[in-house]
Amino acid sequence: MPPLLICGVLERLNAGEVVIGDGGFVFALEKRGYVKAGPWTPEVTVTHPEAVRQLHREFLRAGANVMQAYTFYASDDKLENRGQTLKITVTQINEAACDLAKQVAGEGDALAAAGVCQTPSYLSCKSETDVKAVFKRQLDVFVKKNVDFLIAEYFEHVEEAVWAVEVLKTSGKPVAASMCIGPEGDLHGVPAGECAVRLVKAGAQIVGVNCHFDPMTCVKAVKLMKEGVEKSGLKAHYMVQPLAYHVPDSTYLGYTELPEFPFGTLEPRTVTRWDVHKYTREAYKAGIRFIGGCCGFEPYHIRAVAEELAAERGIMPAGSEKHGMWGAGLEMHTKPWVRARCRREYWENLLPASGRPKCASLSTPESWGVTKGHADLLQHKEATTTQEMKHALEMQKKAKSSG
Amino acid sequence: MPPLLICGVLERLNAGEVVIGDGGFVFALEKRGYVKAGPWTPEVTVTHPEAVRQLHREFLRAGANVMQAYTFYASDDKLENRGQTLKITVTQINEAACDLAKQVAGEGDALAAAGVCQTPSYLSCKSETDVKAVFKRQLDVFVKKNVDFLIAEYFEHVEEAVWAVEVLKTSGKPVAASMCIGPEGDLHGVPAGECAVRLVKAGAQIVGVNCHFDPMTCVKAVKLMKEGVEKSGLKAHYMVQPLAYHVPDSTYLGYTELPEFPFGTLEPRTVTRWDVHKYTREAYKAGIRFIGGCCGFEPYHIRAVAEELAAERGIMPAGSEKHGMWGAGLEMHTKPWVRARCRREYWENLLPASGRPKCASLSTPESWGVTKGHADLLQHKEATTTQEMKHALEMQKKAKSSG
Amino acid sequence: MPPLLICGVLERLNAGEVVIGDGGFVFALEKRGYVKAGPWTPEVTVTHPEAVRQLHREFLRAGANVMQAYTFYASDDKLENRGQTLKITVTQINEAACDLAKQVAGEGDALAAAGVCQTPSYLSCKSETDVKAVFKRQLDVFVKKNVDFLIAEYFEHVEEAVWAVEVLKTSGKPVAASMCIGPEGDLHGVPAGECAVRLVKAGAQIVGVNCHFDPMTCVKAVKLMKEGVEKSGLKAHYMVQPLAYHVPDSTYLGYTELPEFPFGTLEPRTVTRWDVHKYTREAYKAGIRFIGGCCGFEPYHIRAVAEELAAERGIMPAGSEKHGMWGAGLEMHTKPWVRARCRREYWENLLPASGRPKCASLSTPESWGVTKGHADLLQHKEATTTQEMKHALEMQKKAKSSG
Amino acid sequence: MPPLLICGVLERLNAGEVVIGDGGFVFALEKRGYVKAGPWTPEVTVTHPEAVRQLHREFLRAGANVMQAYTFYASDDKLENRGQTLKITVTQINEAACDLAKQVAGEGDALAAAGVCQTPSYLSCKSETDVKAVFKRQLDVFVKKNVDFLIAEYFEHVEEAVWAVEVLKTSGKPVAASMCIGPEGDLHGVPAGECAVRLVKAGAQIVGVNCHFDPMTCVKAVKLMKEGVEKSGLKAHYMVQPLAYHVPDSTYLGYTELPEFPFGTLEPRTVTRWDVHKYTREAYKAGIRFIGGCCGFEPYHIRAVAEELAAERGIMPAGSEKHGMWGAGLEMHTKPWVRARCRREYWENLLPASGRPKCASLSTPESWGVTKGHADLLQHKEATTTQEMKHALEMQKKAKSSG
Repeated sequence: MPPLLICGVLERLNAGEVVIGDGGFVFALEKRGYVKAGPWTPEVTVTHPEAVRQLHREFLRAGANVMQAYTFYASDDKLENRGQTLKITVTQINEAACDLAKQVAGEGDALAAAGVCQTPSYLSCKSETDVKAVFKRQLDVFVKKNVDFLIAEYFEHVEEAVWAVEVLKTSGKPVAASMCIGPEGDLHGVPAGECAVRLVKAGAQIVGVNCHFDPMTCVKAVKLMKEGVEKSGLKAHYMVQPLAYHVPDSTYLGYTELPEFPFGTLEPRTVTRWDVHKYTREAYKAGIRFIGGCCGFEPYHIRAVAEELAAERGIMPAGSEKHGMWGAGLEMHTKPWVRARCRREYWENLLPASGRPKCASLSTPESWGVTKGHADLLQHKEATTTQEMKHALEMQKKAKSSG
Repeated sequence: MPPLLICGVLERLNAGEVVIGDGGFVFALEKRGYVKAGPWTPEVTVTHPEAVRQLHREFLRAGANVMQAYTFYASDDKLENRGQTLKITVTQINEAACDLAKQVAGEGDALAAAGVCQTPSYLSCKSETDVKAVFKRQLDVFVKKNVDFLIAEYFEHVEEAVWAVEVLKTSGKPVAASMCIGPEGDLHGVPAGECAVRLVKAGAQIVGVNCHFDPMTCVKAVKLMKEGVEKSGLKAHYMVQPLAYHVPDSTYLGYTELPEFPFGTLEPRTVTRWDVHKYTREAYKAGIRFIGGCCGFEPYHIRAVAEELAAERGIMPAGSEKHGMWGAGLEMHTKPWVRARCRREYWENLLPASGRPKCASLSTPESWGVTKGHADLLQHKEATTTQEMKHALEMQKKAKSSG
Repeated sequence: MPPLLICGVLERLNAGEVVIGDGGFVFALEKRGYVKAGPWTPEVTVTHPEAVRQLHREFLRAGANVMQAYTFYASDDKLENRGQTLKITVTQINEAACDLAKQVAGEGDALAAAGVCQTPSYLSCKSETDVKAVFKRQLDVFVKKNVDFLIAEYFEHVEEAVWAVEVLKTSGKPVAASMCIGPEGDLHGVPAGECAVRLVKAGAQIVGVNCHFDPMTCVKAVKLMKEGVEKSGLKAHYMVQPLAYHVPDSTYLGYTELPEFPFGTLEPRTVTRWDVHKYTREAYKAGIRFIGGCCGFEPYHIRAVAEELAAERGIMPAGSEKHGMWGAGLEMHTKPWVRARCRREYWENLLPASGRPKCASLSTPESWGVTKGHADLLQHKEATTTQEMKHALEMQKKAKSSG
Repeated sequence: MPPLLICGVLERLNAGEVVIGDGGFVFALEKRGYVKAGPWTPEVTVTHPEAVRQLHREFLRAGANVMQAYTFYASDDKLENRGQTLKITVTQINEAACDLAKQVAGEGDALAAAGVCQTPSYLSCKSETDVKAVFKRQLDVFVKKNVDFLIAEYFEHVEEAVWAVEVLKTSGKPVAASMCIGPEGDLHGVPAGECAVRLVKAGAQIVGVNCHFDPMTCVKAVKLMKEGVEKSGLKAHYMVQPLAYHVPDSTYLGYTELPEFPFGTLEPRTVTRWDVHKYTREAYKAGIRFIGGCCGFEPYHIRAVAEELAAERGIMPAGSEKHGMWGAGLEMHTKPWVRARCRREYWENLLPASGRPKCASLSTPESWGVTKGHADLLQHKEATTTQEMKHALEMQKKAKSSG
């Protein structure tokens, strides 16, 4: 079977192909030293383009067919709110992000995508017009840079996601819509299936979930979406880009609830490449054809997606030249007991220890009383201006010390 | 206090300064898709220099004062043994590695080092002359490329380490010697303190341990070395470059014994940045002044070393512009409960969960009967030619299936 | 407040009093050496009455208001099926059990109860008439011995439980009905609330759950029962007698699914007395007034039920003379750090370690494909005659060895 | 092989027989409601003889050859110190204990033993004369009651243990001496081997350890004792009576250091019967022939000792009529997957889960700075009079609240 011809995302999906997404930029670049946890500083595309480019290349080499421009939280209102005194405009950031994605996509079998995500404007109850204007300003750059398709991702509220899709649709480009929800549905209590239906009706050709939950949980949520869409007699393609973290103890708001977020989740909860094989198979069996990752997905995780589907796709990623399937490279190890591990059965059944006998295996989420359908409470609690944040922080400190 | 002037490693250590080492290339490049686990293919310096360069730069940005050329296992006998049919010569690999290290060192406050490590020749009982010849061929490149200092690292047998030091000393450059042993001593049963004494007597100005054990265990081993050296009335500087993995369940041969090695140790056992703070403080208090990392140490781990010693050194690493000390950047997070985590006490006391309730916290090492002082057994078991390896593997498969 | 007058169970519950049940005989007597795991040999009431009597007395001393005769699985069909070659008749067993319960109940503030539980006859698809005849034979003894009230307990199928209630009701004595189901409902997929409604309609004055799930899960199931009964405009009292084991990993068939059942669940999963305090409070807050325990509940667990409700009930159990509330007795310990533990806050917040770092915290249930609503499958799989059992076992061994 | 003839403990051991000890009374009776944790109220032999007798009988039925009178902490100074306002004399307590042990021993193949343990007098630095007088008062009762042999047990300081042995020897009866130490030796830093030598020289015919550490650790300590004795050219028999708790995280002072002691260790750390099989085999292989248990050992644990050695001893305990070896009784279980567990391999390899995913597997001991060889510090910290205890407790509360 010949390598994929470079054509559009919908053509690929319509032809029954698997499109492999990329992994997570935010956490990877934080660990590499270029992005700040909390504000997740998107200006890195301007200040350190070589770091962003290198990560794109690693995902390409790992087999990703999508180079998603690093435009996460790169909206006007987000950057203003954070009181950044950048000498860089939002437009420059988005432009640089698109340029990098397009450049690397051009180096291999990949498409360039760009996206919008949820906004502080929505949380502070701005009008539909205001929120859409924020999306529109980012979209203008994406259109100008002529990326291949668009993604509305990381939405906790389907209402806002629909607005985003409606804006992106005006470009005439394919639109994928991905929410950061689990099987429980969105923060207003709209079930996952219903979220998907609304997004498809709004014009999204691809729907799914990203971030917040672990691979198997995300697949479960997308299955519910698919059921909802099919029951409504609609049609869509499905995507999934989960965390690379095991977070079975998160409940409604995903990994942000866990006490380890964000600095302690990076490590002990990270999925192995073998976990990714299982996730990929599960997603594939569920009929999901756009399969990638979000926070925590490193190049070797994406390579595992590509390797798991090598037979179906008839292609191995370039990066596999440095990776024996199922540990085959260990055949060359000096220690005899390590050589004995060069077989699929070994790694498939391994239950890796944490090396931390004084740590528990699950945590207790803390979401301060925000539960399903109580989005209002969350909106109330989410401070959206620097001023509010400082105040909130002060209050919290007092509460803690008096408690 | 002004930033460090670029001068030699011994001058710095003699002046009481802390020299921050870099982290682990082998595992980081494997995850990025450029190095194969098992043979740990050092030819990456020729085939993908940009990937190696980028990683050097990340460590530099994180605060490392040493750019160690990626010459791990890049010896004649290693590459031959592995039956590599590379079109690249060993000399080219070592040259390219030195060039990359020197280039990036020149971009900041860092020195370029290059090193040798244990050889298949020693394990297959080649003579001192033969083994030294292997080291000499690598050294010739290092001298030609004029790196700043030399490191003999990752030795399980002090005898071979001494030979390496003797060869490296002929260059006239400063020599650091680092063994991959724990507090139990080397594989022949030579205690850690005695190992250090022999290395110092052979001419090493800096001695310590790297790899195989977790941070606190390595510090303990270096303490024993220091005690040994001081009792002998000798003088030395001390270095430590541990794993970034929690491996309390490993016994004598380190993390290679653990069932998760190498693919399942990457994730759940990885230390957090907060663990690195504690390790750094412990190393510093023990009088160790060359502090870095080995396998698993990513740029953000090295940054944590630099941040922990910011007060003592009067300098913060460049990369800290994207990192609030002790989670300070979270002050800008939207979720109120995440904002509440922007304080040292929170992260210092966090016991991170694994998210894997079906996994244990410790494993049972398997080193096939090789124990302290039974290096002969190991030598017997360690296949050193491709032929032997294939045979050994065959035997093992039979043993497993009949067991 | 004066001690309770000895009056009937319904009078007590109608008056708003709490009735404290006893704990588990099966597992306690197994550990003491008198009962065989698997057939749970009820003939112990005849062969070793002193052991049964002593356990009754311990529960009485712990504060139990109910002495439940040890008639578990003491039905004709059960004992026949097991191919027991006892010289003891089923009637003798049931009579002896009632005598012991009545004797000890008379020694304190307690009532004697006797009960029936699910039968092999039902599983082997015997008719309603046949199954009811089995219950009737046990009931005849209970009536002759004039116990205070009757319990239909440990039913996985509400249909059979209703039959049991109908038989017991013919005696004119108060009837409590308790199923071994969780919040998911019975094995035919009948929801917990609906189960309760059917039992109340059949004449049970007290309904609830026992065995199979952990304390908090059982309380949750009884809450659903209560909601169901109240929605139907019916009235009932509620009872809960859970396992003393933490089994969050069991799904539908309770702890029998867990790989540790029955010999490995005894130990690491056992709840502490502090867990029982929390369970008791939760049950009380849910409006449950008949609160006891099942397998694993030892006398000190029942004492914790009584101590938690000491204020509400105005009475402390006799056994508390040897138990300081919340560790108060430790005030007399020689070690200073143990003395420091004599306070409620300490024990309430303790997260006890397992001391088993090589064991996971959760297991994977194995119920061989039996899931909610697939009771038929279970019936098919449950061998009910010795012949069938031997055959099934043979098949399983083959399946395992070839797998 | 015929059943054992009832002859003395030394005759049995000299003949190469295994003598099975009993289990732990203190914790078992606490759970049954008769003994108070902290002072471990020995007056239960007078107030509730039926409870003590029943437990003796259960151990006898389980296969124990030793009925040890419940005289733990039943010394003058202990009971006085505790400010007990008992109407019962210390003599009465010790007499009743001996009567119960002798009565039950007479019902089967068992010997009656009685013992002394460490005293508050020693800790408060009373003279050798004073301490010996305390032992002598207990011994007088034992001699009068004519028990079969004597045990000096639960000593943290070998000096005091030697004094005890010297007193007990005056009776002319066989003397066993058992310390609550681990492989690290006694609290003054005397190595385990040296402790054993001193005890043998003082006249003990049987030496070993009991309590404080888990089974495998205790076996290790007794091995060191045996090595010490043999190196000195002396001769002795060896005994081991460990905790039934997994306490690998305890260090020097055993399980009293663990945060869960005493109420949270009871449950999750309890060893299974299968653990006891392994321990028994290990003890037997080490040449230990007096094998029993201490705190946490219930009748079914002792039965496992007897069952493991059934072949060597040619006898099965009476209690095994209600216990299939290695789960054989499960052959009769209704659920097919439970029936599949009736085999040795299954239970031998089971790694039982805790069911507590929010708990760690190991704890951090707290012994307030008392470490090896710092017995003085401990003596200083151990309050020995009620007055001192109240004062100490007050201080601790203050320290905690201000910390």
